[in-house]
Amino acid sequence: MPTMHQGGKRAENDVFLAATGMTRFGKRSEALKDLFREAYDDLVKRALSQHVYKKSRELNQAIDAVYVGSMNPEEFAGIGNIATAVADHLGLVGLPTTAVETASSTGLATFFQAYLAVRSGVYRQVLAVVGEKMTGLPTSSATRILAEVIHPLERSCGASMPALAAMSSRRYAYKYELSLEELRNMLAAVSIKNHKNAIHNPLAQFQKEINLEKYLSSKMISTPLCLYDCAAISDGAVAALISADPGPVRISGLGQAGDTLALSERDSFTSFSSTITAADSAYSMADLSPKDIDVVAIHDAFTMFEIVGTEDLGFFPPGRGGYAVLDGLTDLNGSIPVNPCGGLKARGHPVGASGLAQIHEIYRLLMENPGWDIGLTQSIGGLANNNLVCILEKVGHGKRVFGYDIGWRPREIEPHHPPKKSAFSDLFGLLSSKKGRIATFTTLYTVPEGFSEKELRIAVVKVKDGHHVMGIMLSPEDEYGIGTRVKILERDGKPFFEVR
Amino acid sequence: MPTMHQGGKRAENDVFLAATGMTRFGKRSEALKDLFREAYDDLVKRALSQHVYKKSRELNQAIDAVYVGSMNPEEFAGIGNIATAVADHLGLVGLPTTAVETASSTGLATFFQAYLAVRSGVYRQVLAVVGEKMTGLPTSSATRILAEVIHPLERSCGASMPALAAMSSRRYAYKYELSLEELRNMLAAVSIKNHKNAIHNPLAQFQKEINLEKYLSSKMISTPLCLYDCAAISDGAVAALISADPGPVRISGLGQAGDTLALSERDSFTSFSSTITAADSAYSMADLSPKDIDVVAIHDAFTMFEIVGTEDLGFFPPGRGGYAVLDGLTDLNGSIPVNPCGGLKARGHPVGASGLAQIHEIYRLLMENPGWDIGLTQSIGGLANNNLVCILEKVGHGKRVFGYDIGWRPREIEPHHPPKKSAFSDLFGLLSSKKGRIATFTTLYTVPEGFSEKELRIAVVKVKDGHHVMGIMLSPEDEYGIGTRVKILERDGKPFFEVR
Repeated sequence: MPTMHQGGKRAENDVFLAATGMTRFGKRSEALKDLFREAYDDLVKRALSQHVYKKSRELNQAIDAVYVGSMNPEEFAGIGNIATAVADHLGLVGLPTTAVETASSTGLATFFQAYLAVRSGVYRQVLAVVGEKMTGLPTSSATRILAEVIHPLERSCGASMPALAAMSSRRYAYKYELSLEELRNMLAAVSIKNHKNAIHNPLAQFQKEINLEKYLSSKMISTPLCLYDCAAISDGAVAALISADPGPVRISGLGQAGDTLALSERDSFTSFSSTITAADSAYSMADLSPKDIDVVAIHDAFTMFEIVGTEDLGFFPPGRGGYAVLDGLTDLNGSIPVNPCGGLKARGHPVGASGLAQIHEIYRLLMENPGWDIGLTQSIGGLANNNLVCILEKVGHGKRVFGYDIGWRPREIEPHHPPKKSAFSDLFGLLSSKKGRIATFTTLYTVPEGFSEKELRIAVVKVKDGHHVMGIMLSPEDEYGIGTRVKILERDGKPFFEVR
Repeated sequence: MPTMHQGGKRAENDVFLAATGMTRFGKRSEALKDLFREAYDDLVKRALSQHVYKKSRELNQAIDAVYVGSMNPEEFAGIGNIATAVADHLGLVGLPTTAVETASSTGLATFFQAYLAVRSGVYRQVLAVVGEKMTGLPTSSATRILAEVIHPLERSCGASMPALAAMSSRRYAYKYELSLEELRNMLAAVSIKNHKNAIHNPLAQFQKEINLEKYLSSKMISTPLCLYDCAAISDGAVAALISADPGPVRISGLGQAGDTLALSERDSFTSFSSTITAADSAYSMADLSPKDIDVVAIHDAFTMFEIVGTEDLGFFPPGRGGYAVLDGLTDLNGSIPVNPCGGLKARGHPVGASGLAQIHEIYRLLMENPGWDIGLTQSIGGLANNNLVCILEKVGHGKRVFGYDIGWRPREIEPHHPPKKSAFSDLFGLLSSKKGRIATFTTLYTVPEGFSEKELRIAVVKVKDGHHVMGIMLSPEDEYGIGTRVKILERDGKPFFEVR
């Protein structure tokens, strides 16, 4: 029985974003705890300059609770008990402090928990602080840790995050009848735009333009994705203060949704129902629709995800996101600017921190640009199985009557379903047919630890009874494409595919 | 501006505990994800038998969000992306799902987040599910992982959780003028009581009585704590359904508080301000005091913590908790029964699960015992730097007018302070004096990985300027006691103490 507030006055449980702070992203020499400290210090400095608080001590004492986000501080940085360790290091000893984790959307999930804590009325001012230190380990170790978010059986085929994103990309090209060259031109346009946008962002990991030639000549990571399609390993931290006290920017919508852990268990690889459901919740809470949004930050860990994101969020129809980028619609001066600070690609992607970096950026843009009133951020957890969407809104803008419907309501989208029979749980027992057709595939050139091959050919095959199964291709790449018929073989409990 | 509800009618944002479920604790052969599944299945079974839902499908579809708690699933069980992995395995694909962690209080912290999510009005029914699988690794590895929650510089002296608890225990004896024999009799009484209580708990790890002789002859772990003072490594999982829909048991109070990461940075080792502050918040939210509580579950990872807990929670005055156990006041038929299902000691302590196991037990006791209306649980995170307290209350009992003050209010206890100059941050630069007196000490017989000694003598020394510093004793144990003057020496950046 939540209270319902509708119409033109401010709802009792409005929640505001009072201040944010952020470190430079990129390879940093500092320890993780010091990055957290730097982000918090930046928040304090900005909050004082905005006259939200007069003294840092006053701000310090106003905080009722601390939420700490980091995807894997134990393995990346050797830190346990991260919530207490961070609160202690920030000088916020004694406060309730809680660690939150949802893989690569941890930053926005931490923000969501802080929001719920304020909205519940239990706390008045809550600090969310998130960070990740990834460059302290060799890239191969970091890649292995990142791959822990993948379904163990997909991982056993060698699937890394880039390989899964690559298979999603190739299927997108197939579905919308694009040649790989056409697709790569669209992906390149995302990468070029985001690198260009980052030039004026002093906190960005990469502050340099790239062009199509540079994009096309860069190293192939997992076909069809090259180096400039993939966000780099990075370090950094971000802080945000969420408050019940009125301020210039309100958190007007938040939504979260999941999906199957395994990509191959889904019906679609070219659209993420987790984004669609999370956006539906956020739009519904804010009583807004995509046309109301002025500026967007999308989780472009892979360039393909930005294109799919603009479609799943309702800015462009399915299959039109790539053309929109080519047409400049997502440029800084386009109809819907996307990733104006460089996105994960150019600003950097310390996994647990990125979701809150987007909030920091959209907050700054709303505060500094009179023309932008409503911004949206979207964050992807894992291979799009824990996504969040947030809408920030300038208070008092003239676009619509101030006020929103905050109540819980039954969802229109069916959010979950009983588990399908997984093609993994008893792999060969369940496969009614040992034959199928290739649904998508990739050749992975940065092979995970534990594989001796120089490259790995991975595919998802649709079996006759409708199941998908991920496995390793035995045939050479020039012998197959999407739709090719294959035989499924078993070796060491893993599926292998051979062209029939 | 939270809504304030006072007086005799049900507040709009009441939150209820609708159902719980739990696995047997102990050494389990199942994988972590299957323990989660077993706990959830038990919840479903119990919810159906209580007629909360008619069919499991109906319950499944009523759940709006899932919170997953596990202290270190990556290192203990090799599982990443735990929130999605668990929701997927439970057949709750698509739901918002978030992992929560606060070291050994993770179970209750996860419950708290689920509570806040329902109380905020954003969700109506939220599942909290927590688990830990610890016995899959050798005990030495499990001990190392557990020790990651300790301040790195205390850990570098060899301090493990038992060593820190032992130093707290010895200081308690000193402060309240108990001989070690008197103290050990009190600790034994806790252990004997909890083992006795577990005999009728079919989910308990140990269902066997012990006596004083067995206690006294058991292996010394870290003086003065022996084997029967320490909870064992364990596996298990627990689930709880938190709901806005009225039910027979209401969550009427919840509080959380932190403390310094390092034990040696605190003013007191014999009382935990994190418990006192968390209890203050919970009592205040529930508008109750210790005298209203009928039954209690306390975090007895070490027997000493149960005694200190009964004092910090206000059941007995400081220094009287040990006598209360000896006098039988905390027995099943005593004035305030403590750990009637066996506590962490006998029921088992899979670290991330224990906090919710206590909720399961108190919920069952309230449902099944007409004489008990109000129960309390207390959970300790790390070495008491992230503690939570929860009060569950039977709806409609006659003890007081139904209704409570839910609003946020300024705390009366100063919850946090600027960081003191840590004796660790620049150890030898900060020490104004290289001399001090022993505040407490222990001899640790189960030496952590990485130390070659057969036993480690660890002490906390109070330096003349008031700082505490933890280090390693060089002198033989018969040469010192609490108050002995020592010289502080530096070797490899670590403090060593020598009797002057």
